[in-house]
Amino acid sequence: MDGVDQLAPERKKAQFDVDEMKIVWAGSRHAFQVSDRIARLVASDPAFRKDNRAMLSRKELFKNTLRKAAYAWKRIIELRLSGGFNELRTLVLFLSIGMFVPAIKGQGTDEQHQKWLPLAYKMEIIGCYAQTELGHGSNVQGLETTATFDPQTDEFVIHSPTLTSSKWWPGGLGKASTHAVVYARLITDGQDHGVNGFIVQLRSLEDHSPHPGITIGDIGMKFGNGAYNTMDNGVLRFEHVTREGKYVQSNVPRQLLYGTMVYVRQTIVADASCALSRAVCIATRYSAVRRQFGSKNGGPETQVIDYKTQQNRLFPLLASAYAFRFVGEWLKWLYTDVTQRLQANDFSTLPEAHACTAGLKSLTTTATADGIEECRKLCGGHGYLCSSGLPELFAVYVPACTYEGDNIVLLLQVARFLMKTVSQLGYGNMPVGTTTYMGRAEQLMQCHCGVQKAEDWLNPSAILEAFEARAIRMSVACAQNLSKFTNQEEGFAELAADLVEAAVAHCQLIVVSKFIEKLQQDIPGKGVKPILEILCHIYALHLVHKHLGDFVSTGCITAKQASLANEQLRSLYSQVRPNAIALVDAYNYTDHYLGSVLGRYDGNVYPKLYEEAWKDPLNDSVVPDGYHEYIRPLLKQQLRNARL
Amino acid sequence: MDGVDQLAPERKKAQFDVDEMKIVWAGSRHAFQVSDRIARLVASDPAFRKDNRAMLSRKELFKNTLRKAAYAWKRIIELRLSGGFNELRTLVLFLSIGMFVPAIKGQGTDEQHQKWLPLAYKMEIIGCYAQTELGHGSNVQGLETTATFDPQTDEFVIHSPTLTSSKWWPGGLGKASTHAVVYARLITDGQDHGVNGFIVQLRSLEDHSPHPGITIGDIGMKFGNGAYNTMDNGVLRFEHVTREGKYVQSNVPRQLLYGTMVYVRQTIVADASCALSRAVCIATRYSAVRRQFGSKNGGPETQVIDYKTQQNRLFPLLASAYAFRFVGEWLKWLYTDVTQRLQANDFSTLPEAHACTAGLKSLTTTATADGIEECRKLCGGHGYLCSSGLPELFAVYVPACTYEGDNIVLLLQVARFLMKTVSQLGYGNMPVGTTTYMGRAEQLMQCHCGVQKAEDWLNPSAILEAFEARAIRMSVACAQNLSKFTNQEEGFAELAADLVEAAVAHCQLIVVSKFIEKLQQDIPGKGVKPILEILCHIYALHLVHKHLGDFVSTGCITAKQASLANEQLRSLYSQVRPNAIALVDAYNYTDHYLGSVLGRYDGNVYPKLYEEAWKDPLNDSVVPDGYHEYIRPLLKQQLRNARL
Repeated sequence: MDGVDQLAPERKKAQFDVDEMKIVWAGSRHAFQVSDRIARLVASDPAFRKDNRAMLSRKELFKNTLRKAAYAWKRIIELRLSGGFNELRTLVLFLSIGMFVPAIKGQGTDEQHQKWLPLAYKMEIIGCYAQTELGHGSNVQGLETTATFDPQTDEFVIHSPTLTSSKWWPGGLGKASTHAVVYARLITDGQDHGVNGFIVQLRSLEDHSPHPGITIGDIGMKFGNGAYNTMDNGVLRFEHVTREGKYVQSNVPRQLLYGTMVYVRQTIVADASCALSRAVCIATRYSAVRRQFGSKNGGPETQVIDYKTQQNRLFPLLASAYAFRFVGEWLKWLYTDVTQRLQANDFSTLPEAHACTAGLKSLTTTATADGIEECRKLCGGHGYLCSSGLPELFAVYVPACTYEGDNIVLLLQVARFLMKTVSQLGYGNMPVGTTTYMGRAEQLMQCHCGVQKAEDWLNPSAILEAFEARAIRMSVACAQNLSKFTNQEEGFAELAADLVEAAVAHCQLIVVSKFIEKLQQDIPGKGVKPILEILCHIYALHLVHKHLGDFVSTGCITAKQASLANEQLRSLYSQVRPNAIALVDAYNYTDHYLGSVLGRYDGNVYPKLYEEAWKDPLNDSVVPDGYHEYIRPLLKQQLRNARL
Repeated sequence: MDGVDQLAPERKKAQFDVDEMKIVWAGSRHAFQVSDRIARLVASDPAFRKDNRAMLSRKELFKNTLRKAAYAWKRIIELRLSGGFNELRTLVLFLSIGMFVPAIKGQGTDEQHQKWLPLAYKMEIIGCYAQTELGHGSNVQGLETTATFDPQTDEFVIHSPTLTSSKWWPGGLGKASTHAVVYARLITDGQDHGVNGFIVQLRSLEDHSPHPGITIGDIGMKFGNGAYNTMDNGVLRFEHVTREGKYVQSNVPRQLLYGTMVYVRQTIVADASCALSRAVCIATRYSAVRRQFGSKNGGPETQVIDYKTQQNRLFPLLASAYAFRFVGEWLKWLYTDVTQRLQANDFSTLPEAHACTAGLKSLTTTATADGIEECRKLCGGHGYLCSSGLPELFAVYVPACTYEGDNIVLLLQVARFLMKTVSQLGYGNMPVGTTTYMGRAEQLMQCHCGVQKAEDWLNPSAILEAFEARAIRMSVACAQNLSKFTNQEEGFAELAADLVEAAVAHCQLIVVSKFIEKLQQDIPGKGVKPILEILCHIYALHLVHKHLGDFVSTGCITAKQASLANEQLRSLYSQVRPNAIALVDAYNYTDHYLGSVLGRYDGNVYPKLYEEAWKDPLNDSVVPDGYHEYIRPLLKQQLRNARL
C-alpha cells in the first residue's frame, strides 16, 4: 500500500490554491522557500531521526540531544546557513541561543557585548539563563540568591543562602552549560539593591568540571515520553563563589527589559501557532482516514470528519491555528515598532504593547495546550499511542502556559492595564493601539447587535462590534465593582477571577480584529481569501458560543442572535469540510516534522501503526522477560516459594 | 526538617471533624477500616515502591508490573483477604479480573461459568477481553474478526480477514494472557449472525508460547512516564484458528449486556472521584506550602491558596471530587436496583439507568481528566516534574475519556434517550428516575428564578429548579429544532453539537441533585454537614458560571442573578479556605498512594524535591556521558572531524 496517497480524493476536493496558501501561512514567498528547504534537509538526514525517542532511557535521550545539537551546528557551518540561529534553532536551542544571548544582548553593556557575544555565537562557551529558583518563579523580585560586593578585592561573592534559593529549571544548566547569566540580589555595604544579572562561569572549559563552590545537576524526569527529558533543566547552588566585579545591566534603561519581554513573548505566540497546527494537521488527516458507523448496504463507513460533533471540536482549532499565525505575524511587526520607538526614546506605546503581548502569550498558549489534547482525543484510542505523536507534542508544549509568565498572572497584568485605561477615560487620554476601541466606550456601552438572520453574522463589523462591546462592558463592570472597595488592592484581589475574564475578552478581541485586518489586505491565489474568511468567521463565532454567558449577560447579543450564530457556524463547518485536508497541507509540514503515524501525508495509517508496534522492546521476545519468575509460578500455584 | 508537620497550622484551622469526614468519604465505617488497612499495608511494603517508575525502561516497567502482581496475589492468599479482588485490585487488575471475568460472568452460560471462573479466580489461567480492533472501537457491530462454524467438525474457525481486523488495545493481551474472550462475527452456513464472544486459548500453559496460527504482541509505547506503559496492551491476529464449538452468550438475554455496562461504568465513576481527589489533594497541599508575592515588611509571602484566582480554579475541583464520590455511591445503589429488577424480569428502568450511567461516565471522566491537568498547572512549574506525581496521574487517567464508550458518543446516546423522553411527554408515559423532572416540563418551561440576593443561591430548591429548567429547556429546544427536519436521523446528525450540550445539562443536574439528596441524609460529626453543604453550593454555582450562556439564554436566570451567584461563590470560597487542607486529608491517602513530593502530608516539599533530583541517572556523573564526543569538540571548534 506504501506510495499510494490514500488522501488524494480529499485533496481533490479543495476549492483553493494550496501552493498560494502555503505562502500565506509562511508569511512570504521567501520565508516559505527558506523553511521548506530546511525542513527537507532535516527530514532527509538520518542523523535527525526521532521516531525511537519514546523508548530511549534518560541518559540516551540526553546524549542523543547533544549529538544532534553538535551535528546541527556542524551542518549550519558547512552549509553556511545565513540566519542559522533561527533556521535550525530547535535543534541547538538549548545551547546558549534560547535565553543566554538575548539576556546579554538586551541587558548587557557594550563592553559585555564585545566580550561575550562572539564567544557564544561561535559556541566557544555554552550559556544558560539562571533566574528561576526552587522557591521563586513568578515573583522575580523575591529571588534569594545574593551577589555581595567586596570593594577591597573588587569582587562579587555569589551565594545561595537557603535551600529555596537554589537555581532550579534553567534549560541547558544541568549538564551542558559552561556559563550562566545568574540573577541575584546585589548587596553593597549591607544594602539590598534588588535583583540584577551576573555572568558567571560554571564549569572549566578544559574538562567541564564545575568550578569550586558550585554544585550543579539535573532536576530529574519531566512530563512525557521524550519531550523535555531530552533537555538538562538544572539545579545550581553557590557556596560563596567569587568573581570579577562586573554585572549585567549597569546603565541600561529599565524599559528595555520590557522590549526584551515583548520579543520573547511574540516568539511564544508564533510557536503556539506551530504547535497547534501540528496537532490539527494530525487530527484532521486521521479524521479523514478513520471511519466509524454509518455503513449503508455494506459500503464503507462514515469518515469521522463528517460528523458534526467532530467538526464542532476540530474546525475551531483549525481556525485558531490560522488566527494565531496572523496575530503572531502582527506581533512581529509590533516588536519592530516598539524597538524603533525605544531607540527614539519614545516610551508612550510600551505599556499597551506590553499588556498586549502578555495577554496574547497567555491566550494562545492556553488555547494551544488545550487544543493539542483535544486533537489527541479526536483521534480516539490511537491518539494515546506515542506513535501518534500527540502525547509528546502535548507534554513538550504545556510548560508554555507556565514559563515566561504564568498565564493567570499575565492576565491579571492585562486586567490592571485595562482598569487603568478605563479609569482614565474621559480625561482626554485617548487609548492607543489595541485599546483604541475603549475610546468609544460610551457608544459601545449602548449599542445593540443588528444581526437578524444567520448570514448577518458574516459581516465583519457586526462581529467586531459584538467583541468590542463585550470587552468594554466587562472591563467597565469590573471597574465599577472595584470602585466599591475602599482599598483598591483588596478589591483587585477579591475580584481577580472577574478581572481575568475581562482580560480574556480583551485579548480575544485583538485576535479577531487582527484576523479581520489580515483579510483586508490583498491576498492572491484562487479561493484563498474566501476560505480564510470562513476560518475567520469560525474563529469568532465559536468564541461567541463558548463565551455565550459574557455576550448575553452583558446585553451585547440576544439569545436569538446566539442561536443564529450557531446556525451560521454549522453552515461554515460544511463549507470548510471539503477544504480541510488542503488547509492542513498548507502548513507544509514533513512527515518527519509531524512525527505521527496518524498524521501521515499519504493517510496510510493502519499498516504503519501495525509495523510500529513490533519495534517496541517488549516484542524482542515472544515470551516476556519475567515469565519464569512471575507468570509461571502464578499459573502453577507456586507463588509461596517464589522470590518476588 | 523531616518529621515536622509544616501543614499543622493549616490543619488546626479546620472547622469540622476530619475523622468523621473520612468515614463519609469512604462510604461507611467498615469501608474506611478496610481501605485504611490495605492502604497502610501497601504503603509500608517496600515491594510496592513506585517512586522509581519514571526512570525504568519499557521492559523493566513491565517486568516490575508482573512482579508486583504476583506479589500482591501472594499477599492476598497469605492474608486471606476477603474480597481480595477489589481490595488490591489495582495491582492485579490487568490479570483477568478487569474485564475477562465480568464478561464470562455477565454473558457466559452456566456451563461456561463452571468451567472457566474457578480457573480464572485461582489464576490458573490469565484472561483478557479482546474486543477492540485496529479499525473498530466505538462501533462494536462493525468488528471484522470472523468465527465461522464448521458443522462437520463441530468447530469454530477464528480468523482475522484484514489488517484492520487485528485485535488492538486489550490490556494484558500482549504478553501476559493465556486466554481471551474474543469478539467475532459468527458465521454459519455463510450467514453473518453478528458479533459474539468466544473464549479462546492463546498461549500454551506449559511454556507460554502462542498457539499455532496466533500472532500476538505488544502495541508499543503509550502516553506518559510509567503510566500505562506498565501494561501490555496487545495486538492479536488469527490465521484460521480452530476451537471447540461453544461460544459465550448462547442464551443470555440482550438486556444483561446493559446490566454489565451499568456495572463497569459505575466503577469508572468511582475511579473518577479517586483520580480527581488525588490531584486535588496534591494541588491543595502544595498551594498551602507555596508562597509567592505579597510579602509585607519582609514577612513571609502570601500562600498561593489565598489568591482568589487559585481558589476559583481549585475549590470547584475539590467540590467536584466530593460530588463525584456521592454520585458514584448512588450509582452503586442503582446497579443493585437494576440487577434485582433484571432478576425479576423487570426491564422498565433499564433504558433510564443505562442513559444515566453512560452520561455520568462521560461527565465525570471528562471533568476529571481536565481537572487533573488543571491541578498540575495550579502547581506551577514544579507540577511539570514527574516527582509531583501529576504527569503520570494525568497520563494514566485520560484514556478513561475514550475507553468503555467515547465520551461524545455516550452523550449522543443520552441525548437520543432525552429526545425520546421529550417526544413521549403528554402521552401518559411518566418519566422515571433521573428524568422525573421532565414530567414537570410545562411548569419548568415557564418558571422564573426567584433569587434576589446572593444568599438566595444557598437555597437547594432554587438551585435544583434552575438546573432542571435549564436541562428541560435545552432538551425541548433540541426537540423543536429536530422536528424541523423531515429526516430525523439527518436532523440528529446536523444538531449533534447542541444535543451533546443538552445531554451535559441533564447529567450535571443529576450530579447536583444527588449531592443535595446526600445532604438530606443524617450525617454525624461536628461541622461535617455544613462544610459539605458549602461544597455542594460551590459545585452547583461554579457550573452556573461556567455554563452561564445556557442559563441566561434559556431565560432560566437573569444577568443580575448570575452576578449574585458569582458574589455568593466568592463568599463560599472564603468559607472553604480554612477547611481546605482538612478536606483533602479526609481522603485518607497515604504518601505512597499519592506518589507526589508536592502533595506530601507534612508539606515538606522543597528539601524532598531537591533530594529527588539527584536520583536521576543523568546525575550519576558530574560530567555527562557525551561530553567528549559532542560538547568538547563543539567548544573547541573541532566538529569538522568529529564522528556525529
